[in-house]
This record gives sequence, structure tokens and C-alpha cells, in this order.
Amino acid sequence: MTDMKIYDAMRTLRAVRKLRPDPIPEDMLKRIFEAATWAPNGGNRQPWRMIAVRDAAAKRRMGELYTAQWAPYAVNYAKAFPKLPGAEVEKHKRTLAAGDYLAAHMHEAPVLVVVCFNPALMAVTDAKQDRVSVVGGGSVYPAVENLLLAARAEGLGCVLTTLLCADEPEIKRLLDIPAEWGTAAMIPLGYPVGQGHGPISRKPVSELFYNDKWGKPYA
Amino acid sequence: MTDMKIYDAMRTLRAVRKLRPDPIPEDMLKRIFEAATWAPNGGNRQPWRMIAVRDAAAKRRMGELYTAQWAPYAVNYAKAFPKLPGAEVEKHKRTLAAGDYLAAHMHEAPVLVVVCFNPALMAVTDAKQDRVSVVGGGSVYPAVENLLLAARAEGLGCVLTTLLCADEPEIKRLLDIPAEWGTAAMIPLGYPVGQGHGPISRKPVSELFYNDKWGKPYA
Repeated sequence: MTDMKIYDAMRTLRAVRKLRPDPIPEDMLKRIFEAATWAPNGGNRQPWRMIAVRDAAAKRRMGELYTAQWAPYAVNYAKAFPKLPGAEVEKHKRTLAAGDYLAAHMHEAPVLVVVCFNPALMAVTDAKQDRVSVVGGGSVYPAVENLLLAARAEGLGCVLTTLLCADEPEIKRLLDIPAEWGTAAMIPLGYPVGQGHGPISRKPVSELFYNDKWGKPYA
Repeated sequence: MTDMKIYDAMRTLRAVRKLRPDPIPEDMLKRIFEAATWAPNGGNRQPWRMIAVRDAAAKRRMGELYTAQWAPYAVNYAKAFPKLPGAEVEKHKRTLAAGDYLAAHMHEAPVLVVVCFNPALMAVTDAKQDRVSVVGGGSVYPAVENLLLAARAEGLGCVLTTLLCADEPEIKRLLDIPAEWGTAAMIPLGYPVGQGHGPISRKPVSELFYNDKWGKPYA
């Protein structure tokens, strides 16, 4: 699977939320982690670290915390259903059910990857704008995307989650993360229960790209 | 080049700062943009849009603004040189020179991609933490990384820049970006002047990954 072509990996990288507990071969995990190290980042300071959590007790606690965050998120997610067309509702109901499964079975995934970052190692160029900052993420999530794409190419299921960032203080205590580091994501990795990756549903280029100015259609 | 294997693209995606003014074929650009649309994002809301700027006057103004931001950044960057070993200093001096070139020639790149995002479409789960927020970037920079990897696979030079986020109000006026949208990155695209992409210098897995807890070596 590691010979996968880049566009094939990208166009089939879906959120895989049902994972088998089977262990991941060490050499495969190492290839996936190395892919993350290659990512671009500001000033090549690589202001991130990742913790590969396999400890059963830590995974169980993370699963409990995730479930507590997921429950209200799911309630809120479902509130939009009455406004959606029927076919859309069915799709979103399947997503919710998969999310329920992920939360209930989180601790069974063989590896939970916790992504940490250090703001002191970043030039946060949007810090003074009158809106939430995102630029620090520019030195973190490219590595996360590399990791996801590599996992997909290796045949592993995975999904980018950020709900546990709301429980950062407890996650930091649980994993001995130093005071000056924050958490940016948690990615469960494992072989898929079902078919795993495959077709995805995304907006087309014509809806997401503009030509020269905002609103001018990209043709 | 579009048959490139995923690990080959990732391990050779370097910051290419010297770009030729030659136009990019439309079908190639479309493939690169489509790769961005495939990226994972929170709740599949795809809270980003990208503007492909080819207008000469807009590119020139963006180049001026970039140069004004780059100058003090470069001075600050060079301040660390006395603390570095000699071989490292030479490497960083080359990076600075390439940065100078990029700033001076920004307007010559055939396409400048401006990445926008809407915080109202994001669940920013780290908003209440006592540190700079990054989680919004988790729904933006995976798309940016896909775009960079696709550009690299197509043989185009590119580099992820965020300096213009400090000039967001003027960039928004210049490109008619609505009030509720912010800017997350600007990526010049073009054929490389020199060899373009190639070997990169990054920390190894052993320095970036931990096993179960922070500080416990990943073996």
C-alpha cells in the first residue's frame, strides 16, 4: 500500500471511525510517523510533538473524556437535521452513529496519537487580528495531514479529532505534557472494521475557489 | 508527475522560494486545487475558500506588503545566527537569501493563492484554553498541505507563507474578502527557477515522537 499515488490517497482519505483493536506493525507505524516529520512548518522549528498512546488505562480515560465531549456535540450536530433534505439527513445520521461508535470504542484503538505544540516556537502572525487565531496551526496540521495520508496509504483507518482539546488540562496531567505545550488534535489509528477509506463527499473547486477576487467564479 | 507516490512527494516537499513567471497550465492548476478540496475538516463544513490571484496590480501590492513584513522578520531570524554552529549558519543564510528573493519577486509568480477561513463555520474546541488557539487551523491547513503536495507532485514550486496575515485588513480590502472571513496563508505557485523540490532537513521520529507519555522515548 505504500506505493499509493498521491492523488489516490487524498481522494479516498475519509474519516474512518470504526477501528479494530489489532496491533499495528511497528515498521508501518514508523513510516507513518516519519511522514509527519517531513511536513512544512514556520522557520523549520517543528514546534510540535506527538505522543503515541498505547497504554490501556490512558486510552480508557481518554475514551471517557472523549465520550463526555462527544455527547453534547452530537446533540448540537443533530439540531441541523430538520433543515436538511432527506438524503442528507440519512448521511449525517450515519456519521453520527459512526461518531457514537468511535466514542464508545476509542480505548480499543491500538494507538491514540496526541498532537502537542509549543506557541513559544511559533511566529503567530495573526495574533493581533480581531478574530480567533489559526496561524499557529499552520505549523502543526500539515504534519497531521501527512500522518493521516500516510496511514491511509498504509491501509489504516484514522480520523482527525479535536474534541479533547477542551479537556487539555486533564490530558496534560494524564500524559505528563509540560505546562508550555498545548494540544492540537488526537488521532486514533487502527485497521478499519469495514471497508475503511473510500469515496468522500466534498464541495467542488467551483464552490471553494475564486479567481482574483472574492466571489469571482473560478473557471 | 501526477503519478508520484505519496511518500516521495512528502519527503521532497521543500520550501521553493525562487519561482519563474511562466504561466501554469489550467488543467494542472485545477488538479492541484481539487486536491485541496479533498482535505479532512471539522464536520465537513469546509470552512475555507481560496483566491487564485493572477491580476498584476494585486500581485504587485501583495509583494510590497510581503516585503515590508519580511524585512523585520529576516532581521530577527538572523539574530539567532551567533548561537548556531557554522554549517547551520550557512544553511540559514541561504534560506534568508531565498526569502529575500521571494519577497522581491513575489509579484512575478504566476499565481498567489490566498487562503481564507470563516470562524463561524468552525467548532474551535481550544477557544477556552489559556494560550493561543490553533484548532481552527485544523480545518484549513490540511487543505493547504494537500495543495502543496499536489503542486510538488505536478513539478511546481511553492511555499507556505503566513506573513501577510499581519496585513489582513488591507488584503481583505484588496481582494473584496467579506468581513466575517479571515486569512490563514498565502502560497505563491510557479515553476521553480532552479531544481526546485528535493531533500529536506527535519528532526527524526525519535525527537518528535514519544511513547505513551511525554519524554518517554519512542523506540
